[in-house]
Amino acid sequence: MTRKDTAIILAHCPDQKGIIASITDFLLNNNGNIISLDQHVDRDNGEFYIRVEWELEGFGIPQEKTEDFFKTLIADKFNMQWKIAFGDAKPRVAIMVSKYGHCFYDILSRYDSGDWDIEIPLIISNHDKFKPVAERLDIPYYHIKKNKDIRAEQEKKEIELLKEHNVDVIILARYMQILTGNIISTFPNQIINIHHSSLPAFVGADPYRSAYKRGVKFMGATGHYVTEELDAGPIISQDVIPITHRDSIKEMKRKGKDIEKIVLANAVWAHLNHRVLIHENKTVVF
Amino acid sequence: MTRKDTAIILAHCPDQKGIIASITDFLLNNNGNIISLDQHVDRDNGEFYIRVEWELEGFGIPQEKTEDFFKTLIADKFNMQWKIAFGDAKPRVAIMVSKYGHCFYDILSRYDSGDWDIEIPLIISNHDKFKPVAERLDIPYYHIKKNKDIRAEQEKKEIELLKEHNVDVIILARYMQILTGNIISTFPNQIINIHHSSLPAFVGADPYRSAYKRGVKFMGATGHYVTEELDAGPIISQDVIPITHRDSIKEMKRKGKDIEKIVLANAVWAHLNHRVLIHENKTVVF
Amino acid sequence: MTRKDTAIILAHCPDQKGIIASITDFLLNNNGNIISLDQHVDRDNGEFYIRVEWELEGFGIPQEKTEDFFKTLIADKFNMQWKIAFGDAKPRVAIMVSKYGHCFYDILSRYDSGDWDIEIPLIISNHDKFKPVAERLDIPYYHIKKNKDIRAEQEKKEIELLKEHNVDVIILARYMQILTGNIISTFPNQIINIHHSSLPAFVGADPYRSAYKRGVKFMGATGHYVTEELDAGPIISQDVIPITHRDSIKEMKRKGKDIEKIVLANAVWAHLNHRVLIHENKTVVF
Amino acid sequence: MTRKDTAIILAHCPDQKGIIASITDFLLNNNGNIISLDQHVDRDNGEFYIRVEWELEGFGIPQEKTEDFFKTLIADKFNMQWKIAFGDAKPRVAIMVSKYGHCFYDILSRYDSGDWDIEIPLIISNHDKFKPVAERLDIPYYHIKKNKDIRAEQEKKEIELLKEHNVDVIILARYMQILTGNIISTFPNQIINIHHSSLPAFVGADPYRSAYKRGVKFMGATGHYVTEELDAGPIISQDVIPITHRDSIKEMKRKGKDIEKIVLANAVWAHLNHRVLIHENKTVVF
Repeated sequence: MTRKDTAIILAHCPDQKGIIASITDFLLNNNGNIISLDQHVDRDNGEFYIRVEWELEGFGIPQEKTEDFFKTLIADKFNMQWKIAFGDAKPRVAIMVSKYGHCFYDILSRYDSGDWDIEIPLIISNHDKFKPVAERLDIPYYHIKKNKDIRAEQEKKEIELLKEHNVDVIILARYMQILTGNIISTFPNQIINIHHSSLPAFVGADPYRSAYKRGVKFMGATGHYVTEELDAGPIISQDVIPITHRDSIKEMKRKGKDIEKIVLANAVWAHLNHRVLIHENKTVVF
Repeated sequence: MTRKDTAIILAHCPDQKGIIASITDFLLNNNGNIISLDQHVDRDNGEFYIRVEWELEGFGIPQEKTEDFFKTLIADKFNMQWKIAFGDAKPRVAIMVSKYGHCFYDILSRYDSGDWDIEIPLIISNHDKFKPVAERLDIPYYHIKKNKDIRAEQEKKEIELLKEHNVDVIILARYMQILTGNIISTFPNQIINIHHSSLPAFVGADPYRSAYKRGVKFMGATGHYVTEELDAGPIISQDVIPITHRDSIKEMKRKGKDIEKIVLANAVWAHLNHRVLIHENKTVVF
Repeated sequence: MTRKDTAIILAHCPDQKGIIASITDFLLNNNGNIISLDQHVDRDNGEFYIRVEWELEGFGIPQEKTEDFFKTLIADKFNMQWKIAFGDAKPRVAIMVSKYGHCFYDILSRYDSGDWDIEIPLIISNHDKFKPVAERLDIPYYHIKKNKDIRAEQEKKEIELLKEHNVDVIILARYMQILTGNIISTFPNQIINIHHSSLPAFVGADPYRSAYKRGVKFMGATGHYVTEELDAGPIISQDVIPITHRDSIKEMKRKGKDIEKIVLANAVWAHLNHRVLIHENKTVVF
Repeated sequence: MTRKDTAIILAHCPDQKGIIASITDFLLNNNGNIISLDQHVDRDNGEFYIRVEWELEGFGIPQEKTEDFFKTLIADKFNMQWKIAFGDAKPRVAIMVSKYGHCFYDILSRYDSGDWDIEIPLIISNHDKFKPVAERLDIPYYHIKKNKDIRAEQEKKEIELLKEHNVDVIILARYMQILTGNIISTFPNQIINIHHSSLPAFVGADPYRSAYKRGVKFMGATGHYVTEELDAGPIISQDVIPITHRDSIKEMKRKGKDIEKIVLANAVWAHLNHRVLIHENKTVVF
């Protein structure tokens, strides 16, 4: 998310001979200087994945025609799922938050310090608790209450707002409300949640209490794309820390805040830098 | 398991004032030099746990009366679950193994090199694969085939052998057979298994494949006491390693062998050194 | 740093029989309910360490006399280094920062969100970069320039300010200036620095570049008390992360920010909760 | 080290356009099916690194001519440092060991269990301690005493033996003797040592004691190629584990054995699988 004059191809397709050569030839023949190439073949499912970043300066194909050329010359031939991202676009990030502030503050710190070169056009919360924090940074804060009865209706407002602000990604920074399929399908693979366990262990509510009760010796956090099945979307990032019998539930929650915020930030960072490919509910993170 | 002229109290009871003072007074008044004291109060369930090790040289109470005195003067008063272990006993360890050798070899290496000062009076396997390895070290190897139909009958033989050899602990070194309640209840909290996942994630068969399919970014291993519910016994030790999309199932299995053997060894080591307390299906490992 | 009506003894002395019993008797005889006791004997240097926390409600010795009684009845007898802290005091924390904001923002987030129940009476910086951030939170910000020629003089101002604001601890949140013995000796064991390597590897300037050049496979961060010898004070906390050849120096710096801020926070948290004992330039962190 | 009918190119050179395309074209044009390709460009030093593995079945260039063709058509053009390995050769591994057995036993276990498909034509030791272990596995064991006065002379014998047995790699499995430049230069980048610290911390003798004295919160182990400067060769693998004040030097040594043996095995595994490139005293491990 250091923006720069580059473009990035993210693509995957069934593996076959010649894919890398085709893509690198396509770029070289048009005078594109490759500054990074990562590829992977999953021998277990036969899928090929690639991420290539090249400099736009001197590249022979105009930006507005790049997608069309790539589709015709490469993607269709190999039956690819793909996208091309241009590095000079400033990502537009929405934050949804409830009452736990650690992830929320952490993202705002990265934004305000300039470590993340993003726009935050809006914050949505089912509480008004963090309104003053948003105001200090001049970020519009929408307090949209939620409960079972008004969920559908309120989500409509949210979808409208998110569309209106043209967001690229929605961060659930410990947003303690279930999203319906409506909002999820409107922003497919664009909603990133942090779950406070090392999934698939301890799906659902109060994972720290469950971890305490099971007596595990490690606890963790998981950054993942939101899908309709609860806590079952593609995992982008995870981390764990050792715990012992000395860690009370309270202490687990305290320690958990720090891994939650870092794991969420890692997931968002990978997404914003166009490093994540999704296939069969799993990610390749280059 | 460095044997020495010490004794160890392992005890737990509902927390109340004065437990530590009572125990330390009991030892000091009888001229027992404490060389290690660990205690813990779990504020979430109100239980007090303690491990004390003291030198027997000069200790005023004869070894054969120590348990009786401790019971009368301390344990009954505080309603303790407790045991006293004497450090000069060489632990007697049985190994049960199937066809994966990494944990098996690792334990034998610790034994043969003298790093673990134990006896291995017998090895039991449902295959004859490792018989030559056992023979090289002069350890009796019992090849006892298993399947659903003969499980009960074969287990009777195993129980008899294990009793006859007077074993303190039974290590399931990737023993790929289910144990029945019969053998488990005969050796309560004495059977240690290694499960090749970070429990409670991926209970049951082929956890590496399940982890691959879920697309997790960490995999792990768990050493635990065997109880009747599969992979649900008290966890003694765990470890995890990061993985990425680059790790095939085969590579996960390869890497898994190393954490499995270390995690199992850590669990056994803690048990052999009388460092593990069990309460409510959880462990305190001092 | 959850303040509460408790007191904490931190003490260490040469090991001998009866220390724990003496302290627990002292508290119990005066009706003090122990809510946490951690002790450790270092067999390699023969030193005994203890931390005890007890409830003040109902405790028989008035707060203002507690230190005197403890000194006379216990500490002098065992030749202890010790202090007693009362849990109801709100810690007063000064921050010194230069131009890297990640640790600075992280501490402010913990403060502003209420996760850390502290006062921040002042921020000192050799740059004015973060003045607006401080002003948003109404924290006095002192811009005190530094260079070799004016260091001594400027430090005098700083010492005055820090004394005047009666600070308990000074956090060097990536403060890129050397402190002289003058300020260090005025606040002994009260200045906590974050060094961006896993000390003692890569002492001094630009450790990420050094780590890159040496080709290490792990990088880390270290939170430590500042002493006169550069990067050689007692280590409170460390953490590490794996790196590979894929991590450029720039990427190491980016990843480093996250471990730096967490490791620093862990060090400060341990200090503020009276969990750190120092002896022979090393810490015991209970 | 699962041997198979493949070949592997390991190469590095100053980065420029077209390297990947040239190599993949070279293989594809000769009907070589690429089964794995890893490449990396170090933007900090401008070097390009690649590892490609392809199937030999159907490959149009005969094995004995492959190196010549690659050199002429590709390597010379890009000024590469390179080698080609054929996957069907069984690696020949020598072990040198002194009195600590943990790494030694671990390697033998991998060998004897078949997890590592290697030959061990000889073991060299300055003690006769492990002779019986070697004999059980029918591996020739050479007891070659060492001290300052006879080092040069004894090394001559060792070099002769190692050459005679045509070894591919020499593992120093806690071999507590200094090697001279003579043996090192005879087997450049073929001697792998395990150092029991997280280098560059604690170079030299007794690193656990040094780590204890410095009061670090992590300890580690490092697998590296041996060069003339002590403990300063290219690092292949590292790992670390957390420690606390509770870990005595003795306990650090005990825990250290396990990371030492795993880290050493990881280094050797990477080397045997032709995954390590060396440049400017650093490794790229694909």
